[in-house]
Amino acid sequence: MAEPQQDRSRATRRRLLDAAVGCLAELGWTGSTVSVVAERAGVSRGAAQHHFPTREDLVTAAIEHVTDERLAQLRADLPALPPGYDRTEHVVLTIGEMYAGKLFRAALQLWVAAASDDTLRAKVVPLEAHVGREAHRLTVEALDADESHPGVRESVQATLDLARGLGLANVLTDDTKRRDRVLREWARSLHRSVHEAG
Amino acid sequence: MAEPQQDRSRATRRRLLDAAVGCLAELGWTGSTVSVVAERAGVSRGAAQHHFPTREDLVTAAIEHVTDERLAQLRADLPALPPGYDRTEHVVLTIGEMYAGKLFRAALQLWVAAASDDTLRAKVVPLEAHVGREAHRLTVEALDADESHPGVRESVQATLDLARGLGLANVLTDDTKRRDRVLREWARSLHRSVHEAG
Repeated sequence: MAEPQQDRSRATRRRLLDAAVGCLAELGWTGSTVSVVAERAGVSRGAAQHHFPTREDLVTAAIEHVTDERLAQLRADLPALPPGYDRTEHVVLTIGEMYAGKLFRAALQLWVAAASDDTLRAKVVPLEAHVGREAHRLTVEALDADESHPGVRESVQATLDLARGLGLANVLTDDTKRRDRVLREWARSLHRSVHEAG
Repeated sequence: MAEPQQDRSRATRRRLLDAAVGCLAELGWTGSTVSVVAERAGVSRGAAQHHFPTREDLVTAAIEHVTDERLAQLRADLPALPPGYDRTEHVVLTIGEMYAGKLFRAALQLWVAAASDDTLRAKVVPLEAHVGREAHRLTVEALDADESHPGVRESVQATLDLARGLGLANVLTDDTKRRDRVLREWARSLHRSVHEAG
């Protein structure tokens, strides 16, 4: 009888993590209390607090879990990517999409709240470092980039920084069309820097 | 006797705007009430409310005024810029610095709060459009870029989006060294796209 209960507990945890991402993206840090998230997840407040004693625990676990899962999906798609320039463009557009969605908006709320909250900052700084490292590693692999060539590492990093900036521009208004044009132009420059450097 | 009073009123307004930027950057939107800003500015709450009836009025006026002033300073520096590649690098590093400072951190708090506050959003969306337009226009001029060439407009926009993304990466930790490397490499790509296109 232990196993179904473990499954139930995992499912509850999972619902809480998804609900926390949705709450953060829509209501911000101030609105995303454990009670609000529990209600959205259809879980009692007591059960929520059993899994996550504090709001800091809940929301940082949510961003970490959902990001790791998204990166794992993208990694699983790597073998199907086309070769050559099409690959670079596909990777750049995919990264742009990732930073234009709900997960980025949720993470942004957390990052920005941490700027004026030392308890939260202590949890968010290592999370940001982890997410940044994993996103960078995956992008290098996806672009088939050789970071031992001068400038390649910085061009890969710039791709992620650019996507973050475009994500921010998409928070208050739908910036899809402009983003698409900017990313396609950047893919041309990036391909030159990464694969035609000399 | 009207003039000294006008001067005093202007000075009070100015102190409130500067204090609002500082409060937003350090305390976030939630912490930046008219009372808190007035106290920081050394102005009575009544006087503050005479100038700015609501917190929304105060903080959006602050971001607009301080940004316009910063952009005007940068515009005044244009005639002294060096020619050629040095100019591109100087412009890229200057934009990077602008988004790494207090003004960007304050604007970021406002943008992000507006994502879950419709009253604030209605004021911030036109402000974002105004600031974006002016920053773009100045960057085109500073880079001596000809936007009628294919891809040039997008490369200029990407420079501002990149700087915004780097600004975000600088909110919780000091990212100065990495930013400098990324921007110098970016300047090389950008110079190629803007001045060696063909």
